[in-house]
Amino acid sequence: MTQHRTPARLAGLAAVGFAALAATSTFAFQQMSAVDLAQQGDDPAWAITEGLTTEIGPRPAGSDREAEARKWAVATLQKMGFANVREEPYQMPVWQRGEEKAWLTGPFLPQSLAITALGNSGSTGPKGIEGEIAYFASFDALVAAADSAVKGKIVFIDNQMEPTQDGSGYGLYGRGRFMGPSVAAKKGAIGIVIRSIGTDNHRNPHAGVTNFADGVTPIPAGAISNPDADQLVRQRQRATGPLKMKLLLTPKTIGDQTSGNVIAEVPGSDPAASPVIIACHLDSWDLATGAIDDAAGCGIITAAAKHVMTAGQPRRTIRLLWAGAEEVGVFGGQAYFDKHGKEKHAVALESDFGADRVWRVDFSLPDSADDLAKRIGVALAPFGVVTGHGEAHGGADVGALIQAGVPAVDLQQDGTRYFDLHHTPDDTLDKVDPAQLRQNVVAWTATLGLLANSSDSELP
Amino acid sequence: MTQHRTPARLAGLAAVGFAALAATSTFAFQQMSAVDLAQQGDDPAWAITEGLTTEIGPRPAGSDREAEARKWAVATLQKMGFANVREEPYQMPVWQRGEEKAWLTGPFLPQSLAITALGNSGSTGPKGIEGEIAYFASFDALVAAADSAVKGKIVFIDNQMEPTQDGSGYGLYGRGRFMGPSVAAKKGAIGIVIRSIGTDNHRNPHAGVTNFADGVTPIPAGAISNPDADQLVRQRQRATGPLKMKLLLTPKTIGDQTSGNVIAEVPGSDPAASPVIIACHLDSWDLATGAIDDAAGCGIITAAAKHVMTAGQPRRTIRLLWAGAEEVGVFGGQAYFDKHGKEKHAVALESDFGADRVWRVDFSLPDSADDLAKRIGVALAPFGVVTGHGEAHGGADVGALIQAGVPAVDLQQDGTRYFDLHHTPDDTLDKVDPAQLRQNVVAWTATLGLLANSSDSELP
Repeated sequence: MTQHRTPARLAGLAAVGFAALAATSTFAFQQMSAVDLAQQGDDPAWAITEGLTTEIGPRPAGSDREAEARKWAVATLQKMGFANVREEPYQMPVWQRGEEKAWLTGPFLPQSLAITALGNSGSTGPKGIEGEIAYFASFDALVAAADSAVKGKIVFIDNQMEPTQDGSGYGLYGRGRFMGPSVAAKKGAIGIVIRSIGTDNHRNPHAGVTNFADGVTPIPAGAISNPDADQLVRQRQRATGPLKMKLLLTPKTIGDQTSGNVIAEVPGSDPAASPVIIACHLDSWDLATGAIDDAAGCGIITAAAKHVMTAGQPRRTIRLLWAGAEEVGVFGGQAYFDKHGKEKHAVALESDFGADRVWRVDFSLPDSADDLAKRIGVALAPFGVVTGHGEAHGGADVGALIQAGVPAVDLQQDGTRYFDLHHTPDDTLDKVDPAQLRQNVVAWTATLGLLANSSDSELP
Repeated sequence: MTQHRTPARLAGLAAVGFAALAATSTFAFQQMSAVDLAQQGDDPAWAITEGLTTEIGPRPAGSDREAEARKWAVATLQKMGFANVREEPYQMPVWQRGEEKAWLTGPFLPQSLAITALGNSGSTGPKGIEGEIAYFASFDALVAAADSAVKGKIVFIDNQMEPTQDGSGYGLYGRGRFMGPSVAAKKGAIGIVIRSIGTDNHRNPHAGVTNFADGVTPIPAGAISNPDADQLVRQRQRATGPLKMKLLLTPKTIGDQTSGNVIAEVPGSDPAASPVIIACHLDSWDLATGAIDDAAGCGIITAAAKHVMTAGQPRRTIRLLWAGAEEVGVFGGQAYFDKHGKEKHAVALESDFGADRVWRVDFSLPDSADDLAKRIGVALAPFGVVTGHGEAHGGADVGALIQAGVPAVDLQQDGTRYFDLHHTPDDTLDKVDPAQLRQNVVAWTATLGLLANSSDSELP
């Protein structure tokens, strides 16, 4: 993907762009005119994304850093004028990264591999392990393999994900990460390494959580970068005998720790009306500052709520959920559901797919909201957003709500380059395009304004 | 820069492309027709680039790996039918990378930086050092600073190189790396970190050698990636007090070790005619497999020499120099000059600027060769190569020869994305575009054929 350098000195330009964009656009919107938006002239989405990534940096779930990020979030949301700003803590099990190294050790000269442990990986112990590589072209090939092809070996799953605009490859190719280690462990593998679930060609492996089935003892599990996976494949083509690998991964689990959600609200004028919930997640993987995953999402939803609030009090309360511990198992989303799942919610939305532009809107709304959905589609069209025919699924942190029947709207972001960066050391602020970030805020503001001012006959 | 994934499985396509390209092109060339070229049908440039990077991998100067690479080179060149294939060893001082870590430690939460030590860096010792950062926008700003602004601090030089097609930014921005550490040490700095001399936005810092002036004790010196430098700049903008950094770099020098050049020849039909020398370098930085720097260069010159040899014996001998230890101080080029500098050489060329296409040809030839230069220009034009008006400077490994008066031809490669990759962990085979590699070979073959068959009245 084309990723030009966006030096820090350009960041300031973002502040003036939002007003310009809003002022020059046809902006069909119930409570707020383009002029209203233009008069705001600030860029809270950029300010939040930059502030969180610069002052806090990486925010692993259940860590002191995540706790500092919650304090930062509370202070920021209060300063922006939101109401009922608070932390809602919960406990969650924490896995911590240790040393991580790997080498191709034969039949050629040893070569170092860029590797990262998958979340919940077992440890090799401090001396590491060495073994023959059992190669599988795909997760399905591993599943189909006899135990004897795997037992005592280090499994390698070589499935190359290709970019898609809607990110739909993640489910298919991600299985190698989500489930591959558990399958390999059950078949007797001593370790597993996968080609990163990613679409870039940099020596920065993609982290991410894996899950071992009940009763399966975790084995060491890591992801190597795409160029390293290519190298393994080439060595395999050139080697006459088996390939060997040495693996050193020393992560550990440290038991339950405190994590938490941060909640804030724009109080609605009708206290009896059910609220609109909009979500992002505050935690990030530890390898980078989590700019696209998901500081930008928090920036987008918060800027939109701020713009709606500034334009005039909405009828429904808007509740912001900056969820904790999404990356390692959606503990924050579950904690929110456990605490608030019985309350009524009019509709749920989440921004957790980077900072590139919204290109499609999908709805899962009751029939009574057909006209509302049409009005949203009309409002978004000038910003290059098409109305899709798919269902809306929200994001992970509102997933439990939506499964329980809460309506949803998805503002689908362009994911073409998302998996170049997702869960890698490269998820840093320079990857956020200020112009596309602003388009997100405009699309969210228009949508949120219409939803928050919808009638009870449209949304329950 | 756009860098699509080039999976290993596509590599095989390279083998058929060269013949196709040659067959469809107008190929004005004295001894070889396009049909001759087409009949060869193999792709030795790719085979060498892939083989060297896959089977040997990183090839640091003066290491056992470089020695293995020489053996690989001798075997390959002999197998390809070259004559007088041999190693020419020499001794050189060796610097070895150790641990390398860095953190921004204040005033915000500690954040890890992606850092690599510069060649010849001093060591922080195993406990590291911590200090206040003395910020300089450029190398010139550091030079102009009072000692008191630097003494006891860790210097940071923040100069952002931009891409150019001819790579001309390297000289200007590179000074921060070449000379910055020596200047900082003289002014009393305890360490120095520079923004990588690179044009990418990945968390992969750019290595490279630095030189301390005589009598100056080396201080710890590293390069951080562009995103990390951006982060430092942003923290500086947000901080009310000074920034602090912790630095752990533990490289060491291990004294003189054996390195060596590999030489091979295409014997000419006229033993009295002075030879054409074509060069590349065999060593690479240790962070990657050195595909673009400079396995591809060795692939290009060797493929061209092979094609000329296959087309019919040239009048002049073609001598191939696969130089050792270029990266750390051109020890191989100097050793060649010390041993062979007194011999006559008709003309010198080098390929050491990646694998992207040749876009310009420059000449530093005697007036007697005006028509020869014109013939080369005519031969190259169909392949998108313009004739430049600049001088030719060869490459580092033939630099001493050219300084001593040997004529030169430069086949200038497109450097627009070269400094995205140069000296980083990302210098891997997937970055080599097979189509552009083939264009290099075609341009080199045409040029080399004309030069090797030039008369004594054209080149002395």
